[in-house]
Amino acid sequence: MGGSGHEPAHAGFVGEGMLTAAVCGDIFASPSLDAVLAGILAVTGKAGCLLIVKNYTGDRLNFGLAAERARAFGLKVNMVIVDDDAALPDLFQQRGLAGTLFVHKIAGALAEAGEGLAAVTAAAQGVIAGVATIGMSLDTCSIPGSPKDDRIASGKAELGLGIHGEAGVEQVTYTNARDAMTMVIDKLAAILTDEPMVVLLNNLGGATDLEMAVLANELLDSKISSQLKYIVGPARLMTSLDMRGFSVSLMPVKDSAILALNASCAPSAWPGLKPIQRVEFMPLPDGLKPILPLATKQPLRRDFIERCCNIFIACEADLNALDAKSGDGDTGSTLATAARALIGSLDRLPLADMTQLYRAIGLELSQTMGGSSGILLAIFFAAAGDASASGRDDIGALKAGLDRVQEVGGAQVGDRTLVDALLPALDALHEGLPAAANAARGAANFTATILQAKAGRATYISADQLRGHNDPGAEAVARLFEQLI
Amino acid sequence: MGGSGHEPAHAGFVGEGMLTAAVCGDIFASPSLDAVLAGILAVTGKAGCLLIVKNYTGDRLNFGLAAERARAFGLKVNMVIVDDDAALPDLFQQRGLAGTLFVHKIAGALAEAGEGLAAVTAAAQGVIAGVATIGMSLDTCSIPGSPKDDRIASGKAELGLGIHGEAGVEQVTYTNARDAMTMVIDKLAAILTDEPMVVLLNNLGGATDLEMAVLANELLDSKISSQLKYIVGPARLMTSLDMRGFSVSLMPVKDSAILALNASCAPSAWPGLKPIQRVEFMPLPDGLKPILPLATKQPLRRDFIERCCNIFIACEADLNALDAKSGDGDTGSTLATAARALIGSLDRLPLADMTQLYRAIGLELSQTMGGSSGILLAIFFAAAGDASASGRDDIGALKAGLDRVQEVGGAQVGDRTLVDALLPALDALHEGLPAAANAARGAANFTATILQAKAGRATYISADQLRGHNDPGAEAVARLFEQLI
Repeated sequence: MGGSGHEPAHAGFVGEGMLTAAVCGDIFASPSLDAVLAGILAVTGKAGCLLIVKNYTGDRLNFGLAAERARAFGLKVNMVIVDDDAALPDLFQQRGLAGTLFVHKIAGALAEAGEGLAAVTAAAQGVIAGVATIGMSLDTCSIPGSPKDDRIASGKAELGLGIHGEAGVEQVTYTNARDAMTMVIDKLAAILTDEPMVVLLNNLGGATDLEMAVLANELLDSKISSQLKYIVGPARLMTSLDMRGFSVSLMPVKDSAILALNASCAPSAWPGLKPIQRVEFMPLPDGLKPILPLATKQPLRRDFIERCCNIFIACEADLNALDAKSGDGDTGSTLATAARALIGSLDRLPLADMTQLYRAIGLELSQTMGGSSGILLAIFFAAAGDASASGRDDIGALKAGLDRVQEVGGAQVGDRTLVDALLPALDALHEGLPAAANAARGAANFTATILQAKAGRATYISADQLRGHNDPGAEAVARLFEQLI
Repeated sequence: MGGSGHEPAHAGFVGEGMLTAAVCGDIFASPSLDAVLAGILAVTGKAGCLLIVKNYTGDRLNFGLAAERARAFGLKVNMVIVDDDAALPDLFQQRGLAGTLFVHKIAGALAEAGEGLAAVTAAAQGVIAGVATIGMSLDTCSIPGSPKDDRIASGKAELGLGIHGEAGVEQVTYTNARDAMTMVIDKLAAILTDEPMVVLLNNLGGATDLEMAVLANELLDSKISSQLKYIVGPARLMTSLDMRGFSVSLMPVKDSAILALNASCAPSAWPGLKPIQRVEFMPLPDGLKPILPLATKQPLRRDFIERCCNIFIACEADLNALDAKSGDGDTGSTLATAARALIGSLDRLPLADMTQLYRAIGLELSQTMGGSSGILLAIFFAAAGDASASGRDDIGALKAGLDRVQEVGGAQVGDRTLVDALLPALDALHEGLPAAANAARGAANFTATILQAKAGRATYISADQLRGHNDPGAEAVARLFEQLI
């Protein structure tokens, strides 16, 4: 039913309840006349055949002539031309875009239900008359074997584009998903009736599902949201290879069309029709609310915690850079985020009581930090609190916390984790901070020579990539002790 | 069930027959302990709850501790850890990758069928024991808000990678899809039993459906193809945002697992299980075979056609560049491809008879050229043949061909198409080639001032982009006549 490069369209929609055949051209090119004719001859029975063609000269010519030749064989062949492009409403020849999917699904469902060729054709023409589509993209697509077209600069987007890599009607400044969706909706709103609508949100290929979910949210929050009753997608339906963009197609709600869009069909590429409903938010279940200790004051301890936190905040970028060598580059951000949250929580912490304070810090961290470091630190402080409650001194409490972290996390000394630096530092701490800092620094630097990590993300990295880089967790510990002196 | 950025996993697989809930962390980060606990408390009834967790420290810790806390509420909670990564088989801690989908689907189907928690857990563990996955990517993924990591140079690929943007186990040279699939299969084959297998072909996010289809073809043509009985995908199942790569997961075929993989389920993101079968090729239907005229010789005419063809071949790049300004950049390639095909067909053409020759060229072009130019040229020569048969001279025959092209294609003079140059050239041709060339050149240059195209792809382009560029079709005509002088 047209060129390739639009996958899953068109072959992906062949199956019970949608298309009977797809005739594929080269990328973005119409199939040849003979290919179309072969397709028609291969699948057309007594009931006849409806050709669903998008309005491009090549497709129109090849499918049109093939239909003529097939009719000469005595076959019943009808053709409909989809022209849902609303980018230039006064254009001589409007393109066929993702709105074509409405035609595929509705005509397919009616044919599956046994409707005759005339009725299916009339229904398809009714759909075409009502559908309008606008697309937007942040980048051009990569056509195999061709150099990439760089016409869209960073920070720009093209509005009103087709599905063959051709330039959009206008270049606009891209700011965010909300403004992008507003521009698309404004174009559509200009030609919109006030009827209830079905919307189809199409991924042009290279947008991620996360980005499409953000766009769907903006769509359902737009000025036309009250008109939107059903949605198809977001999904890749009519793509332009890997184009990082989307299109929105609108069609007035009609009972017969909704029934046909809802009918089950075989192609897994069809994402189904969903009624648009409010998202339900449920209250958090009981059992999550922590028992908050009463806040108490202890200015010296408060200053000390703040100092520790600020040390982590100051080395955020350095630790991220180090982590990027062996992990996912977020050690610094994870620690800094936790440190900032902890500073923000100082007013409600039980600063005067070390046992309560350890536990409270553990609770704070379990609520504010994601990632493995968050839970490990939460375990560290919770266990330190337990140890403090049973009478151990500060160094003893911290060592108990580290014991628990090793138990749950499985890291031993030499595994290239923060344990490598924290264990010797705590062992040396009774001799004073300089001794602890010295031990931590030596151990942290030694991690740069450990070429096989056994815990954390660094385990997946080759020795070559690890050599010469300190483990970011061990480095964080060393910097903390060094800067506390 | 883990970090975000893997869409459709995990939220896209929530629904009847698969998951009951997904707990989403930030991008590539485990959800917090409290988020996991809230999820468990929200959905766990008397039958209990199975946590399906991928083997990452953060997920293991958060889900593990949340399970402990939920059990303290009297809930039945089991946890399985998926570690299907086969990149480093001797690794201390193997990662959870796309093989997790087998666990989701099989455990989900069994739970839907009413199996108890113990049976579902045992089945999930059985699946985990048998699954192995290897991934490969040509590029890193783009993490929102982070600069892109450029560690993979052009022409290189990473083999044995995870799903969080971390570096692969090794960088390899990328040559083509076949070699890429072979490298992945070789890694898997090293740990493979000789049982029949189900394969899952996962798109890591940014590969196009066309590229995945090529990879699927290579997979089914690989040295382990005889072991492959069923396939899931190719589809985006467990992605790394927009990573341009894929992964292959293998699992031994067991009747109970196949039944569960085949069971219907609500999430449209699940592409279904398909038995691997030979592709059926059908013979072309009757009615396509053209009646071939007998080849005849006419050396001068043969030279002339070859000269015309070589003119088009020589200006392929120039015309493509011109077309890129206003269309999809393929005018030159389309004409050159046709010209090459025509040169290749000279031995079988009826060169001695102009009527037959026109028709034969039309037939050749309708079979070898896609795109709109192909069919328009086919119509041109077919109609010229008809006119020649009814006694018109060469110029008259060519003019009749052009009439038919305008009729079917709808282009008038001034619409910014090749008609603009061809019509005045044919009108001037009775005064000789130089006059025709002169007329064509003047008219082709005039197209650079026509700022609203009415036919072809240029109709979608703004005036600013058209100004100063000749229409590539008109330019092709001008070059032909100029260089024939």
